[in-house]
Amino acid sequence: MAQDTDTPIDETTVPQKETLEVDDELLRDLEDLVKSRSDYLVLNIIQDLVPGDIAHILNRLEMADALYVFGMLTNEVASAAVLDLDEPTREHILANLAQDRLTEIVGEMDSDDAADVVGELSDEKAESVLETMNVADSSQVEELLRYDENTAGGLMAKEMAVVSKTDTVKAAIRVVRKLAKEKMHVYNVYVVDESGLFIGAVQLPDLLLHAPNKRVYKIMNADYRSVTPDVDQEEVARIFSKYDIVSLPVTDTAGKLLGRITIDDVVDVLKEEHDEDVARMAGTDSVSVGQRSPTRMALMRLPWVMMTLLLQLIAGVVVHVFDKTLSQVILLASFMPIISAISGNTGLQSAAMIVRGIATGQVDTKRWWLPLRRQLIVTLIIGAACGLVLGLIAGFWHGTPLFGAVVGTSMFIAINFSGMVGTATPMISHSLGFDPAITAGPFETAFQDIIGITVFLSLATAMLQWL
Amino acid sequence: MAQDTDTPIDETTVPQKETLEVDDELLRDLEDLVKSRSDYLVLNIIQDLVPGDIAHILNRLEMADALYVFGMLTNEVASAAVLDLDEPTREHILANLAQDRLTEIVGEMDSDDAADVVGELSDEKAESVLETMNVADSSQVEELLRYDENTAGGLMAKEMAVVSKTDTVKAAIRVVRKLAKEKMHVYNVYVVDESGLFIGAVQLPDLLLHAPNKRVYKIMNADYRSVTPDVDQEEVARIFSKYDIVSLPVTDTAGKLLGRITIDDVVDVLKEEHDEDVARMAGTDSVSVGQRSPTRMALMRLPWVMMTLLLQLIAGVVVHVFDKTLSQVILLASFMPIISAISGNTGLQSAAMIVRGIATGQVDTKRWWLPLRRQLIVTLIIGAACGLVLGLIAGFWHGTPLFGAVVGTSMFIAINFSGMVGTATPMISHSLGFDPAITAGPFETAFQDIIGITVFLSLATAMLQWL
Repeated sequence: MAQDTDTPIDETTVPQKETLEVDDELLRDLEDLVKSRSDYLVLNIIQDLVPGDIAHILNRLEMADALYVFGMLTNEVASAAVLDLDEPTREHILANLAQDRLTEIVGEMDSDDAADVVGELSDEKAESVLETMNVADSSQVEELLRYDENTAGGLMAKEMAVVSKTDTVKAAIRVVRKLAKEKMHVYNVYVVDESGLFIGAVQLPDLLLHAPNKRVYKIMNADYRSVTPDVDQEEVARIFSKYDIVSLPVTDTAGKLLGRITIDDVVDVLKEEHDEDVARMAGTDSVSVGQRSPTRMALMRLPWVMMTLLLQLIAGVVVHVFDKTLSQVILLASFMPIISAISGNTGLQSAAMIVRGIATGQVDTKRWWLPLRRQLIVTLIIGAACGLVLGLIAGFWHGTPLFGAVVGTSMFIAINFSGMVGTATPMISHSLGFDPAITAGPFETAFQDIIGITVFLSLATAMLQWL
Repeated sequence: MAQDTDTPIDETTVPQKETLEVDDELLRDLEDLVKSRSDYLVLNIIQDLVPGDIAHILNRLEMADALYVFGMLTNEVASAAVLDLDEPTREHILANLAQDRLTEIVGEMDSDDAADVVGELSDEKAESVLETMNVADSSQVEELLRYDENTAGGLMAKEMAVVSKTDTVKAAIRVVRKLAKEKMHVYNVYVVDESGLFIGAVQLPDLLLHAPNKRVYKIMNADYRSVTPDVDQEEVARIFSKYDIVSLPVTDTAGKLLGRITIDDVVDVLKEEHDEDVARMAGTDSVSVGQRSPTRMALMRLPWVMMTLLLQLIAGVVVHVFDKTLSQVILLASFMPIISAISGNTGLQSAAMIVRGIATGQVDTKRWWLPLRRQLIVTLIIGAACGLVLGLIAGFWHGTPLFGAVVGTSMFIAINFSGMVGTATPMISHSLGFDPAITAGPFETAFQDIIGITVFLSLATAMLQWL
């Protein structure tokens, strides 16, 4: 998009403030044009949009319409847009593209993105795309497909700027220039020794600082961090942020350079983890709305809901065990939902803090007594406050101090118990090798309900003769 | 860290796999050395660590020990480490540093970080730091302090590579070289016209592609995106990811270049939003564990817990209203916790999806009927399945089909009702200008509890004569 004249170009500078507002209006116009298959007018709008915006629009169109618009895109734009599509839209489009077009689009991508897309195809389609791609590209994609997608290997791309340690600054600049021509983002040049082992990195601006005939190993950062392909993607994100870097080399255990991860991959990882954590806390497996059919969404959520239902049945059985107590003092039933909600809430908060602490490295499960002690102090205070308030309310409501004491004490015990369970379960699941986030959400809630109700009704039963 | 000899440097290449493991062992050794104030040995270890690791260690030490170790750091390392500290540790260290040292450390920072740190100081301290800093730096910091910290203005830094549109590629390289000497990360060179209006950007590798005497405006990207300082930080993150950029210029409404935001700031924003969302779902205001005293944590959480308690009292009152029904058919009490938990769970899931959809732009609140219709189909299916299963269990348990029908129908109605409320509330709060995430969590849960119990006990009361 270089300007080739000397005419004023100030009209391009008016800042657009609200991207989404513009898109919403545009989308409505576009939807009508697409419905009426006004090729020329649709193309006219689409041409002025970046791939990210096009993807946003495709995500909101009906599948057949999305496929129609996708058919108008150049291979270059299509290959960028496809990466930003929602899973169901991408799935539908990939499944309906002709073999040739698919190969062309995948061929435009960097190796990491190509591997992600090929990995989503049916085995048959993937195979024929890999066969029709050029050999160098397809062997890179095949290599990347071998790694777990949640690891450094799954994030890395094969395209990178690499020089040998005896190369000069001038040679390094030549490598960068070549990659820039291919529209690749280059942030660092990696330096390898004669056996291909990674020995350091040079930042791009540093290449401009030194004499062209200087050897790169004299100006490289030899402490530059690398990871092996099996390192978890959350750990990769942590390394980027701790070392304040924008690209990270991936090597095998011997130190041989295999590929590189860039900071935009980390941004994607963080978004994905965010969605996952929020989904788990809500007791589901995905919070992405997208175009997925409501029936499919319901079927995906059903197993989780059913599991919660069965867990909650235990709470129902507990209530049944104490039904004599309940029928004698029916007001107890009014405090049941309160006690279980508050102790569930406290337990969930403790669990969320520990899950987050483990993720950020602030909680060390080997020194499990430290967070446990801290959370105990917290729940003792909260338990005392809630027990006092609820106890007073209950005492006045029923008209007897003893009833208040039973409710208040139950609240106090249940909160402390829930806090301990909420703190311990994520640490235990982490130690056993499970994702600690899985324990937050509905399991935690059901468990807390059972604890709260059991404590409350047991205490009430013990005190029954005086109530 | 440039190598100045030709000796083999392969020993630096062994990849270290697990950063945190290393730190944990190191930390224990270090803690002992710090406790015994073994200056030389502590310094020896600290010198080999990057600022990110040092911050991680300081976060875990007791305050007095952290302050002692911090005192050993050079200004350069200290200024980088302080940015990675937990809020309470940073607060303690900043409050206890001598005026001179504080000014030196802030002076080492980029303007955006300097503004963040000065913004956290007491008014008195902030003022004297700004007075003792050099005038150019302090006026930049003062400018940045005027912006809301959750906006583009709060994220941007004043340091950037800027050239005039009539400058040559050679001149642009000179600017980059100068900034690289000051150890600044440069990704793009921004181009302004004679009145300082932003008109485009050049990527660093592109500078290497063109003849030194070419004018920059001929090679710049004139479509390069910019934002005004008031744009929300979530929108900023969305722009980075949509346009696949690593730096974003900030301009005033007239288009005058004010500063730039880099992708590492976006990584910080995403982490912060993650913490906030998880915290809100757990019904608290922060899930950061840190060194914050447990008493303070309890006091911070108490208002939220108390609010939940008062909301839940309404559920208690509802139960009380129906106590005659309950005392006649006490088995109803066993199904109360199940119905309220499952409908609460479904409502929370719907709410989480809508909150996320609004954040990612997938849900357009102006077309509110679309998500509502989708969620209704989902809850109709889930409600039917859960109603059937729970109804069968209840029927067999009580021994009468009618009891099963009451429980099953209540479950069905409560789930659909909760799903609608869960879908509508975040959209309504978004339309009213509130953060939709605030409605997920305890408020949602309390509300759902009330709905579930009311539906269930009303229906049971209506059917009472036949039960």
